[in-house]
Amino acid sequence: MGRYGTRDDMVVHEEQPFNAETRVAHLAGSLTATDAFYVRGHGNVPEIDPNSWSLHVHGAVERELRLSLATLREAFREHEVTATLQCAGNRREGLMAIRGIPGEAPWGPGATGTATWTGVALADVLELARPMAGAEHVGFEGADVSQEAKPVAQRFGGSIPLDKAIRREVLLAWAMNGEPLRSVHGAPVRVVVPGYIGARSVKWLERIEVRSSPWKGYFQHVVYRLLPEDGTPRGGAGIPLGLVALNSDVLSPADGEIIPPGPVEVRGYAFAGGDRYIARVDVSLDGGSWSQAELLDDLGLWAWRHWRMTVDLAPGEHDIVVRAWDSSAATQPENEAALWNPKGYANNACPRVRIRAAEA
Amino acid sequence: MGRYGTRDDMVVHEEQPFNAETRVAHLAGSLTATDAFYVRGHGNVPEIDPNSWSLHVHGAVERELRLSLATLREAFREHEVTATLQCAGNRREGLMAIRGIPGEAPWGPGATGTATWTGVALADVLELARPMAGAEHVGFEGADVSQEAKPVAQRFGGSIPLDKAIRREVLLAWAMNGEPLRSVHGAPVRVVVPGYIGARSVKWLERIEVRSSPWKGYFQHVVYRLLPEDGTPRGGAGIPLGLVALNSDVLSPADGEIIPPGPVEVRGYAFAGGDRYIARVDVSLDGGSWSQAELLDDLGLWAWRHWRMTVDLAPGEHDIVVRAWDSSAATQPENEAALWNPKGYANNACPRVRIRAAEA
Repeated sequence: MGRYGTRDDMVVHEEQPFNAETRVAHLAGSLTATDAFYVRGHGNVPEIDPNSWSLHVHGAVERELRLSLATLREAFREHEVTATLQCAGNRREGLMAIRGIPGEAPWGPGATGTATWTGVALADVLELARPMAGAEHVGFEGADVSQEAKPVAQRFGGSIPLDKAIRREVLLAWAMNGEPLRSVHGAPVRVVVPGYIGARSVKWLERIEVRSSPWKGYFQHVVYRLLPEDGTPRGGAGIPLGLVALNSDVLSPADGEIIPPGPVEVRGYAFAGGDRYIARVDVSLDGGSWSQAELLDDLGLWAWRHWRMTVDLAPGEHDIVVRAWDSSAATQPENEAALWNPKGYANNACPRVRIRAAEA
Repeated sequence: MGRYGTRDDMVVHEEQPFNAETRVAHLAGSLTATDAFYVRGHGNVPEIDPNSWSLHVHGAVERELRLSLATLREAFREHEVTATLQCAGNRREGLMAIRGIPGEAPWGPGATGTATWTGVALADVLELARPMAGAEHVGFEGADVSQEAKPVAQRFGGSIPLDKAIRREVLLAWAMNGEPLRSVHGAPVRVVVPGYIGARSVKWLERIEVRSSPWKGYFQHVVYRLLPEDGTPRGGAGIPLGLVALNSDVLSPADGEIIPPGPVEVRGYAFAGGDRYIARVDVSLDGGSWSQAELLDDLGLWAWRHWRMTVDLAPGEHDIVVRAWDSSAATQPENEAALWNPKGYANNACPRVRIRAAEA
């Protein structure tokens, strides 16, 4: 067993704070096992006693709340949502192959995963607190303290627009895949914001602040922003990340793999982000003609979609290129190099693997 | 003056039914003049007497309605929304340059435009009609009869999800740019569905049908669907178009233009579609390094964004390439050829113009 109850075959990018990626083999299912689910942390994992935990709801609200876990579970209706979380740094490895990104972890395709989450709708808690006129954002603050932040030692936090916060899919969750939330995933209660970058699904939630403006903390105002190629992180610079951009990746075969000629099954995932869905996934062996993959389990609007296609490989080298389409009929950009950015976020270029078909 | 009160310099693609595109010069402003606004028609332009017109609201509703124009205007609150409409065939010309698309008009960048629309929120009308449990789509039918449809001579129509229909930005509009809606643009009342393809903003509206399933008429079930390259239009095939995909185009300089060396202002528009906004527009002269354009008038979430950037041109040939980014940090696909599809819809490739800088 790995740290914090994770599998011992996680791809660990950093021990302190703990950052670990799901191995490709464990991304193959439409639901991701809890012990294989990626962990993106910015500070030490807090160990919180659920009996003394409380949630403070304040800011631009008519009624300030302090809710114990017992009250949260008793006073509101329980909801379950199946949702994909995806770190803004997912697939950064591809950008780092183009040009180095010092200080950032080389996440591959496994900084994402899908689970069923159980909790209460944030909307119901907000309805009790009653946002005041002028309220436009809902901020979340965790118990975890980050030494990476500037100024240093601030708690991790972020906000989402109120319009999103009052949608039923946004949860304050205490369970993941049908078991109590584990410490490493934010126990006793975390936010789950389906369709948004993982950083907004704040773990170890302790404070909700209803605001007139977006969160001014480091993890929203300075980082988790898409800079131009020659940009430098500073407060307010770049595109604030929120909605996940349409993305996909190939899970099998692996880049560089040598496999026997003949039929081979190509498999992967695709995730539309926001409130869009995956409408089609295309696979090409020649970069010019495309065939449509079979879309697998439909877990609803908030989850990725796995896909597969069998291709027949002649002996020799092959580039397999994939593109997903979302419900706006948008597809992915082709050129990974053109997406390079100083923090290595939001790599959603068409995935590409080079394989060789050869007799063993 | 051109037909139906349009400018005489419209780019007319078809006289009957009347289909005419806004000339590039008239796309330069953030708002598009009514007499220059594009017209996409599928049948003869109906001339409807507003005094005898009525709107029938029926289907999966608790209360069926028949509303006269006077009632519509008196019983509900008036709203104004500034919104871009964009035909799904906008920029088809670029796809046709790659491979012919018989039977479709070669729309350039002017099958789009932005106007202020005045009317009532569809949401308010639906609230009076009270959609029943199981209602999931809202269909619209116009008075125009199309000979293009199969079976022939059906009225133009389409539907949007109920979730979208109850948003305040969706209007039943009787005015455009502060004057009564003209016949060619759908008088007396048209639907305006901001963020969706123009085909859903049904003109000459006469019937609203609340439904459990999407519209089964030709213009939603058979066409206005994105097919794979080798697909054939048939009921239910392809991705049903609805949300507009992130797009942009260069309005100046024109492709092929010869201009003096030195500083030149590059201008264009960008439109995020759906409920996303334009977060950044990049311009490149070398296809590899990008500079950020200045974003002009912000007309709100439902409108395109004009942009400009001054580049300094050495004598010789230059390719100007542009890419827009939306609020999910998604950008446009680079390769126009890879977007070719049998009906020529949704060309949202990075726009590209080749110019020559030379002394006159």
